[in-house]
Amino acid sequence: MQLSPEQFRYTPGTSLAQYASQWGPLKDARETLQTTIEELSDLQEKLYADDRRSLLLVFQGMDAAGKDSTIKHVTSGVNPMGFQVFNFKQPTYKELDHNYLWRFWRAMPERGRIGIFNRSYYEEVLVVRVHPEMLEARRLPHDTVDDRFWQRRYDDIRNMEAHLAENGMTILKFFLNVSKSEQRARLLSRLHESKKHWKFDPRDLDERDNWDAYQDAYARAIAATHTDRAPWFVIPADDKWTMRAIVARIVTDAIASLDISWPEPNHDGAVIADAIRRLESEPD
Amino acid sequence: MQLSPEQFRYTPGTSLAQYASQWGPLKDARETLQTTIEELSDLQEKLYADDRRSLLLVFQGMDAAGKDSTIKHVTSGVNPMGFQVFNFKQPTYKELDHNYLWRFWRAMPERGRIGIFNRSYYEEVLVVRVHPEMLEARRLPHDTVDDRFWQRRYDDIRNMEAHLAENGMTILKFFLNVSKSEQRARLLSRLHESKKHWKFDPRDLDERDNWDAYQDAYARAIAATHTDRAPWFVIPADDKWTMRAIVARIVTDAIASLDISWPEPNHDGAVIADAIRRLESEPD
Repeated sequence: MQLSPEQFRYTPGTSLAQYASQWGPLKDARETLQTTIEELSDLQEKLYADDRRSLLLVFQGMDAAGKDSTIKHVTSGVNPMGFQVFNFKQPTYKELDHNYLWRFWRAMPERGRIGIFNRSYYEEVLVVRVHPEMLEARRLPHDTVDDRFWQRRYDDIRNMEAHLAENGMTILKFFLNVSKSEQRARLLSRLHESKKHWKFDPRDLDERDNWDAYQDAYARAIAATHTDRAPWFVIPADDKWTMRAIVARIVTDAIASLDISWPEPNHDGAVIADAIRRLESEPD
Repeated sequence: MQLSPEQFRYTPGTSLAQYASQWGPLKDARETLQTTIEELSDLQEKLYADDRRSLLLVFQGMDAAGKDSTIKHVTSGVNPMGFQVFNFKQPTYKELDHNYLWRFWRAMPERGRIGIFNRSYYEEVLVVRVHPEMLEARRLPHDTVDDRFWQRRYDDIRNMEAHLAENGMTILKFFLNVSKSEQRARLLSRLHESKKHWKFDPRDLDERDNWDAYQDAYARAIAATHTDRAPWFVIPADDKWTMRAIVARIVTDAIASLDISWPEPNHDGAVIADAIRRLESEPD
């Protein structure tokens, strides 16, 4: 099967349940990933040299969907000077003293760079929507947490993304779409590996019990914030190598389609010829 | 030849000129690098899980010594959530409003992480020592820039490193020791590659003319700041793969020698057994 980004782009008006958690899987996903990463690595150097655009990659998904390992594989081989991964956890006390987008603004990629958000501001309309009691720590000036409240948050996010896009940022948002049964298999496999027990938190299973509420929150957030300039991609996540190959392909194509170029030297050929002469004429 | 970190550790009292810019080179440097990185990748996961210690890797060297590519190769395959590369350039106006170590403090690795400084606070006793006119922008309260001034800076740095080490940071400092003739070859090869012309700055050649002044500044800085807990390593840099393999070996051995362990789960076996039962008893 031919891998093309458009196949995985969210289509407005569709329900999340229509998206497969399996695709293929790609027979040669590992090899596809490897060659795609080589392309990506070259394009990243050009993005960096061009220094007018940046990329923001947002990764969201249920526990065990494969966010960490996808990020690890897609970035391996890319110059670490050119990207930065931010792992967003619970906000700190200091961060809670600010509005909820503040800590994400501070982490936005600089020109020429690729910023990777492992979880993101979308948690503010996902985990916080499933657990609205979390809003208490945020001491908001208004009390009513109704549909309009969440709509305003979607507006906030859409507006921020529009501003970033307008100023040169390409935004790609990935929902790693793992099935409930595959999540169970992965959680069980973690539980059977004693080296990973320290990571286990019994509350992870409670979150699994909220599966439907999360799917609903994802569906609403994705529908409300999918735009041409900050699209969502729904990635089949049940096969890890396939997922990684798809994400790498989407990122690579996005950079390839940008109007970027190697900068013109700000000196003419004579300066280069001069420098060559100067080095070559040095005594040995 | 057997690769051991101790061979490259700076020895107090020696002159930098005694250190080779070539070593071997390792016949199988690429393979050695590859297997070392796999070890490093596993150890990094343990360092992260242990969450009591951190690593700071400082890279210094002349232009074209291979800092960028060494960092790229040594980190490739390591989980990007576990390390962060900081590329230090000219300080900004805001940074110049602070003391000269301020911007580096802000970039120090968190517990469990590996911080990589591509150039570092050492520039304050290297490029600034070769070009003391740079101090003007720093508006220091005292005027006399004499030997004692630089000694106080070495003291500052030693004290900062002692404090960091005391609190769980392992500090490894790499001087990538490229020969003057190899630097010439690399600069020429850049000049012959038109894709890289935009990066070329004729002042790079002026800096090459300051070669001896830089070697002297390096020699003084290394001699004054080499300590048991924040050692310098002088890495033969004329063969790039050998250099990368050596650096990877030193970093890997340093983590392997730390007293780190996988954390104990903060719940007993019954909790795990319970979770397994809970997942397994779900209806399909």
